[in-house]
Amino acid sequence: MRFLIPLISSSITSGHYRITSRLLSAHLTKPRRSTLHPFFNCQPPSMAASEESLRKALAEKQSAVEAHGNAVRALKAAKASKQEIDAAIEALNSLKLEKSSIEKQLQAAVSGSDGDGALSREAFRQAAVNTLERRLFYIPSFKIYRGVAGLYDYGPPGCAVKSNVLAFWRQHFVLEENMLEVDCPCVTPEVVLKASGHVDKFTDLMVKDEKTGTCYRADHLLKDFCNEKLQKDLTISAEKAAELKHVLATLDDLSAEALGAKIKEYGITAPDTKNPLSDPYPFNLMFQTSIGPSGLSPGYMRPETAQGIFVNFKDLYYYNGNKLPFAAAQIGQAFRNEISPRQGLLRVREFTLAEIEHFVDPEDKSHPKYSEVVDLEFLMFPREEQMSGQSAKKIRLGDAVSKGTVNNETLGYFIGRVYLFLTRLGIDKDRLRFRQHLANEMAHYAADCWDAEIECSYGWIECVGIADRSAYDLHAHSVISCSMSSSYLSFLCRGGHLSNHVKNVFDEEQREGNIDFIETNLDKSGVPLVAAEKFSEPREVEKLVIAPVKKELGLAFKGSQKNVVEALEAMNEKEALEMKAALESKGEVEFYVCTLGKNVPIKKNMVSISKEKKKEHQRVFTPSVIEPSFGIGRIIYCLFEHSFYTRPSKAGDEQLNVFRFPPLVAPIKCTVFPLVQNQQYEDVAKVISKSLTTAGISHKIDITGTSIGKRYARTDELGVPFAITVDSTKDVTIRERDSKLQVRVGVEEAALVVKSVTDGLRTWEDVWEKYPHHTSGSADD
Amino acid sequence: MRFLIPLISSSITSGHYRITSRLLSAHLTKPRRSTLHPFFNCQPPSMAASEESLRKALAEKQSAVEAHGNAVRALKAAKASKQEIDAAIEALNSLKLEKSSIEKQLQAAVSGSDGDGALSREAFRQAAVNTLERRLFYIPSFKIYRGVAGLYDYGPPGCAVKSNVLAFWRQHFVLEENMLEVDCPCVTPEVVLKASGHVDKFTDLMVKDEKTGTCYRADHLLKDFCNEKLQKDLTISAEKAAELKHVLATLDDLSAEALGAKIKEYGITAPDTKNPLSDPYPFNLMFQTSIGPSGLSPGYMRPETAQGIFVNFKDLYYYNGNKLPFAAAQIGQAFRNEISPRQGLLRVREFTLAEIEHFVDPEDKSHPKYSEVVDLEFLMFPREEQMSGQSAKKIRLGDAVSKGTVNNETLGYFIGRVYLFLTRLGIDKDRLRFRQHLANEMAHYAADCWDAEIECSYGWIECVGIADRSAYDLHAHSVISCSMSSSYLSFLCRGGHLSNHVKNVFDEEQREGNIDFIETNLDKSGVPLVAAEKFSEPREVEKLVIAPVKKELGLAFKGSQKNVVEALEAMNEKEALEMKAALESKGEVEFYVCTLGKNVPIKKNMVSISKEKKKEHQRVFTPSVIEPSFGIGRIIYCLFEHSFYTRPSKAGDEQLNVFRFPPLVAPIKCTVFPLVQNQQYEDVAKVISKSLTTAGISHKIDITGTSIGKRYARTDELGVPFAITVDSTKDVTIRERDSKLQVRVGVEEAALVVKSVTDGLRTWEDVWEKYPHHTSGSADD
Repeated sequence: MRFLIPLISSSITSGHYRITSRLLSAHLTKPRRSTLHPFFNCQPPSMAASEESLRKALAEKQSAVEAHGNAVRALKAAKASKQEIDAAIEALNSLKLEKSSIEKQLQAAVSGSDGDGALSREAFRQAAVNTLERRLFYIPSFKIYRGVAGLYDYGPPGCAVKSNVLAFWRQHFVLEENMLEVDCPCVTPEVVLKASGHVDKFTDLMVKDEKTGTCYRADHLLKDFCNEKLQKDLTISAEKAAELKHVLATLDDLSAEALGAKIKEYGITAPDTKNPLSDPYPFNLMFQTSIGPSGLSPGYMRPETAQGIFVNFKDLYYYNGNKLPFAAAQIGQAFRNEISPRQGLLRVREFTLAEIEHFVDPEDKSHPKYSEVVDLEFLMFPREEQMSGQSAKKIRLGDAVSKGTVNNETLGYFIGRVYLFLTRLGIDKDRLRFRQHLANEMAHYAADCWDAEIECSYGWIECVGIADRSAYDLHAHSVISCSMSSSYLSFLCRGGHLSNHVKNVFDEEQREGNIDFIETNLDKSGVPLVAAEKFSEPREVEKLVIAPVKKELGLAFKGSQKNVVEALEAMNEKEALEMKAALESKGEVEFYVCTLGKNVPIKKNMVSISKEKKKEHQRVFTPSVIEPSFGIGRIIYCLFEHSFYTRPSKAGDEQLNVFRFPPLVAPIKCTVFPLVQNQQYEDVAKVISKSLTTAGISHKIDITGTSIGKRYARTDELGVPFAITVDSTKDVTIRERDSKLQVRVGVEEAALVVKSVTDGLRTWEDVWEKYPHHTSGSADD
Repeated sequence: MRFLIPLISSSITSGHYRITSRLLSAHLTKPRRSTLHPFFNCQPPSMAASEESLRKALAEKQSAVEAHGNAVRALKAAKASKQEIDAAIEALNSLKLEKSSIEKQLQAAVSGSDGDGALSREAFRQAAVNTLERRLFYIPSFKIYRGVAGLYDYGPPGCAVKSNVLAFWRQHFVLEENMLEVDCPCVTPEVVLKASGHVDKFTDLMVKDEKTGTCYRADHLLKDFCNEKLQKDLTISAEKAAELKHVLATLDDLSAEALGAKIKEYGITAPDTKNPLSDPYPFNLMFQTSIGPSGLSPGYMRPETAQGIFVNFKDLYYYNGNKLPFAAAQIGQAFRNEISPRQGLLRVREFTLAEIEHFVDPEDKSHPKYSEVVDLEFLMFPREEQMSGQSAKKIRLGDAVSKGTVNNETLGYFIGRVYLFLTRLGIDKDRLRFRQHLANEMAHYAADCWDAEIECSYGWIECVGIADRSAYDLHAHSVISCSMSSSYLSFLCRGGHLSNHVKNVFDEEQREGNIDFIETNLDKSGVPLVAAEKFSEPREVEKLVIAPVKKELGLAFKGSQKNVVEALEAMNEKEALEMKAALESKGEVEFYVCTLGKNVPIKKNMVSISKEKKKEHQRVFTPSVIEPSFGIGRIIYCLFEHSFYTRPSKAGDEQLNVFRFPPLVAPIKCTVFPLVQNQQYEDVAKVISKSLTTAGISHKIDITGTSIGKRYARTDELGVPFAITVDSTKDVTIRERDSKLQVRVGVEEAALVVKSVTDGLRTWEDVWEKYPHHTSGSADD
C-alpha cells in the first residue's frame, strides 16, 4: 500500500524543472561565453541613438556627395561658367568635409566613448603582464616544450598570492560561518556527471577548418566578425548595424543550426587560412579518461567542485545534527577542455574553484547574520537597469533585498560577504559590480543569480557567481529527471515515499508545461537527498490511499501481477481519482502498464482507492541551495591589474613598477637589507630574519651590493609592503612601499612591528605616529 | 668550429645514467609495490633459523609418527603382546604430542612473534576506521553511487586536519628555507612525461581473468599466494619455505616472463572465480586524456608534481639570482590509475603530494643549517643493518653523516627536518624510522635514498621519500638520453656547447658500461637546464678544437657537405684523436656519417684537429637534486592511527574514542558549551565564539541540551583539544582533552588562553599552573 502525498509545501515548486537543452547548458557554471555579455557591447541608449543617426547621416551625406559630384561633372560637360563650376566644387568640398567629420564622429561612437581608452588599456595590460611574467607571478606551463594553450603555472610570488587568497577565503567564509569544508577527488565517474547533466549538456559549439582540421569556437568567430564589421566598416547601413548588434545580443541563445546559417550568410571562413568551415557541432568540454585497468569505466576530470558536495549531502546533513541551514565548501582544481583558450589567465583549461553550497529550507531563506551586511552600499546592476540601458549604480544592500531586487536575505547576505571579501583583498570597489542575470541567462529552476564582475583591461569579468539554484542539484542526484508519461515515470522513480513525492512535483511541473525536456535516464543514485522539519504538533492531512488487492490481481495477471501492482501504486492523485471514478461508474477500466508495454483491464475488486485523514509529524522536503562560486584565478588576475601602477624613478629617467598589494595578500611581507655589505649589518639582518620566520612572516634577505634604491625598486615590483634596512646594530628603518615613508625602530622590535601591521592589528598610520621618522636624505630611488 | 669541452668537473659523472627498464621503473616515485618490503617479511635471523629448524623438526617428527604408526600396525598384524602394543602406542602418542607442540611453535613463528598482535592490530584498525568514517574524517567518494575503488573524500574534520598539515608543511619547509613554491597544472602533455620516462616505464604488471576479464596485479597475486602458503600450510618443507621467501624478497625484480612462469608453476588462478589467468603484461598507471578539441594532443594527469618544477628550472634559477643552492616546492594533486587499490587511504588513485626539489652543486652538498639537526637522534635503518638481518636502531644524525652512512650533509639535513616535521604533527617517534634503500631498490643515478616509514596497523608504510637523485631529472628534460652510436648521438644532440658537453658525459658513461639502454627519442626540450659557477680567477684548460675545412669538404661532398661537417664537429675527444692519428699516418680515413647512412673518405686537408689552451671563466654543470617527497594522505592516515585511543567512560560501561591530535593539527581547536540551556549562558558562549573567530581559532558551539559528559565525548572523538564550558557570566572553565583537567578563566580571557596554547606560545602545563583549578565534581563523563 502506498500513499500519494499531497504537496504540503508550496515552495517546493518554486524551483522549476524546465530542463531544456539550452537552459541547462547556459546554466551550468562554466565561464560565460563572452566575458562582456554581448548585450553590454551596445552603447547606452543615447549613444546607440547617436550612432544610428550618424550612420544615417553618413549615408545621406554620401548620397549628397555623389549627387553633387554628378552635378559638378554635368556642369563641366555643359561647359558652365567657371564661377558656377567653382561654386559647385566649393559646395562639394564642403559636403566632403562634413562627411569626413561625420565619419570621425561615427568612428568614435563605434569604438566606444574611449577609442583612446582601449589603446591605453592595452598598453596598461602589456606593462602589467610583462612585469607579471618577468617576475614569475605566472609562467606559461611547460614553456621549454613550447607550452600548452590555456595552462599556466604560478611561479613563487603568484603561488604565494594564491595561497594567501585561499587562506583568507577560508578565514572569511569557512571559519566565519562554520562551514563544513570537504575535499573530493578530481577524477569523477561518468554516472555522477551524467546525473548532473554535464555529460549531455556541457558543450560549446565548434567548427572545423575543412582542409586543415583546426578547430574554432563557432560563437567566437561570429562575434569577432560582427564586432570587426561594426567597428571598422563605417559604410554599413544603420539597418545592417542593428542586425549585427542583434546577433551579438542573442549569440548565447543561437542553436547550432542558427549559428551555422549565420556563418554561411556572412561568408565567415577560417581566420588563419580563409578555408571554408564545417557546420557547428557540440564539443563536450570535459577532459575524459578511464578509471581502472578494464577500460570499461569512463570518467572525467570534474568541471566544477560542487558535485562532490551534492553527492555527500546526506552525510553532511547528518554531521550537522540533521539541522538546516548549513553550508558546505570546497576548494579545488576544476578542468575545462576549452576549444581555443584566449585572454591569458582568464580562460584556462585548469583552474582553482572555491565553492560554497549553502543548504536552506525553501520556506525560510532568512539569515541570522544578515543585519551585519544590510548597510553595505556598492555598485549593483539589476536586471531592470540592464534592460533599460542604464548603468550600474550604488545601492544599499538592505534596500535591494527589501524591494525584492535580490530574491532573499541569504542570497543578499552572501552578496555582501563577497563584496567584503573582494575589497579586502584589494579589488577596487569602483571597478566591482554585482550584475543580476537576465531572464535568458538563468535556468528556470534558479530563483535568482548575481555575478560579481570586476573590470579589468579585458572588460567586465565574471569572477564570482552567487546563485539561488533552488532544489535542482539535490534532485538531479536523487531521482530521474522526468519521463515520457506518468506511468512510465512512476516506473522509473525508485523507492517509495520520496520518489512518489518527487514524481508529484514533476507531474505538476509537467501539467503546468514547465517540463519540455524529457530524460529517460536511469543513472541516478536513487538515494533521497532531503531534509525534514519536525512539527512541534502533529498536523492532520488528507491522503490518497491506493491499495491494490493482490489476490485478485494475482488471479487475473499471474506472473505480471507485480508489474500491475507497481503501476497502480505509482499513480498520481489525479490519475487515481480518475480511475476511482471510472471504476465506480463502469466497473472496469483499461490501464497502461509501461513495464508490460500494454493495457490491462482493471476491475473494481482489484484495487481500493480512498481518501484518508493522517497525522503528519514532520515535513520532508528537498533543501534549496544558494551557491557562491569563486573563480580564484580570475580574481587573482584582476587583483594583479588593480594593484599595478607605475611611478617615475627619483632621477625621472624611467618608470618603476609597483604592486600595491595589501599585506594580507602580498607574496612576501617584508625584505631585509643591510644598507652596505658589512658583516655586522648582515648579522643583524639574520637576527631579524630569524624573528620574522618565528613570527610566520614570509620575507627575503637581499645582501647583494646593489644600490638601496634598486633593491627597493625590485621589491616594489613584487608588491612587498615593508622593507627593513639595517644601517646600525641598534636601530633599523622600516619603509612602507606606497608612501615610501620610513620610521626608526629598535632591532628587537622590527619583526613585531611588521607582524602587527601585516596581521592587521594596527595600520601603518599607527606606526608612523608612534615611531621617530627617518628623515635623512633617503637612499630610496 | 666547435670545441669538445673536457670534463672539468669529475662529479658530473657521479650521477650514473644506467637507464634500464627495470631500474627506471623501480625508481620512479610511485608507491612501492609492497608497503612492507618483502625482505622485511623475513624474521630476524634467530627467528628465521628457528622457523627453518622447526620445519625440519616437524618433517622429522611427521616421518617418525608415520614410521611408528607402521610399527604399531605391524605389531598388531604380528599379534604381538598387549603390553608390547600398548607401549608402542604410548610412544606413538607421545610422538604425536611432540609433533603437535612443534606445529604450535611453527604456527607462532610464521605468523610473526605476535600472532595475537596481528589480531589486535586488526581490531584496533577497525575501531579507528569506524570512528573515522562515522565522524566523516573521510568518506568513500561518490558513495551514493556505490563509490569508486581508490577514491576518497575528506569530510569536514579530515579536510581541516589536511589543511592544518599543509599549512604547517609550508611553515616548516617553504618559509623556513625560503623555498620557491610553484603551482603547476595536473593536465600534462605527453612530451613532458615521455621525457621523464613515465610514458614508457610507469607501469605495473597485470593479469586478467581469462573468462571474466577482471584485472589483477600480478605481483599481488604471487605475493598473496606465498604469504598464505607460508603462514597457513605447515606441511611445506623448509626448502619450499625458503623458496617462497626468496620469491617474496625478489618480487619487485621479477620480469613479466618470470612472474608469469611463477604464476603458472604455482597454479595460481583468479581469486574470485578460480578461472585461469592471462600472462602478465604492463599496464601504464597514468590517467590518459586528450588536450584540446582535435584529439591529436595526448595528455596525462600528472603522476607526481616534481616534473612541473624541473621544466621550470631555468626560470627559477634566474629568479634566485642565478645562485645555488635553492629549493623549489610544490603541493598538489597527483594521479595513479592503480590496477586494484587496497589498504584504504594508503593506496589511492588520487592523492596530495608535497614535493621539494633542492638544487645543489654536485661538488658541494654541504648545508648552512646542518648544525641545527646534527644532534637529533632517532631510529635509522641503514642498508647494512637490513642486509644482516638486524633491526632499526637509534643513531645520532651527525654520526650517520660523518660515517658516510648518509651520503651528504644536505640529504642529512632534510632527513632531520622530516623527522622534526612528522613528530611535531603527532607521529609517534618510536613508530617512525628512516630506512635506506637497498642497492636493488635504487636507480644507478641516485646517490642515496632514505624513506621515512611509519608503522601502523598495515605494517611499516613509506610516507616520505628523501632521495639524492643526482642530475638525472634535469638531464632528462634537456637532452636526448643516449643513442645507437656516437656519431648518431652527435646528430641527435641539438645546439652547440652544451649538447657536446652532455654528449661527452654520455659517451664516458657508455664506455664505462653504465648505459645499457639506448633511447633514440627526439622528444626532449633541447633547452639546457644547467647552472654556472663563475671563477674568481680564470682557469686554463686544454681543449680539443675540430675545424672542418669547408671549402675542401664542399668540393668533395657538394650537397652533403653540411652533414659531413656536423658529423665531424660532433666527434668526441677519443674519436677525434683517433682520426687525427689516422690522418697523420695514413692521410685518409673512412668516416661514418649517420645522417647520410654511409661511410665517406676524409682526407688530411679536410679537417684540422688540434689541442689548444683556453681560459675558462666559469664552470657549467647540471645541478644535483635532493628530493624530499611527502605522501600527505599516508602521513594523515598514520597520524589518525597514532592519535587514536580509547578510554573507559566514567561509568565504565563503554569505551570512548579519543584522538590525541596536538592543537597544531586538531580539526577544531575548541568547543564552547553552555553548561545548561539558558539564554544568559548562550549569550556568553556567543561572545566567546566571536572572539575565537577574530583570533582565527576554528571552533564549534554546542547548545544541544545533551549532558555535558556526552558533549565532551563527542568532541574528544573529533580530537578537539579544548572545551570551554560556560556556567557563569563571569568565569568559564577550560578543559584539556587528554588529562581532562579544568581551569577557571575570565570570560574575556578565554579565547586568548586557547589561542596562546594552540599557537604554541605556551603549554597547557603553563595554563594549569597559572589559573585556578576547577575542582567541583566535574560533569565530565
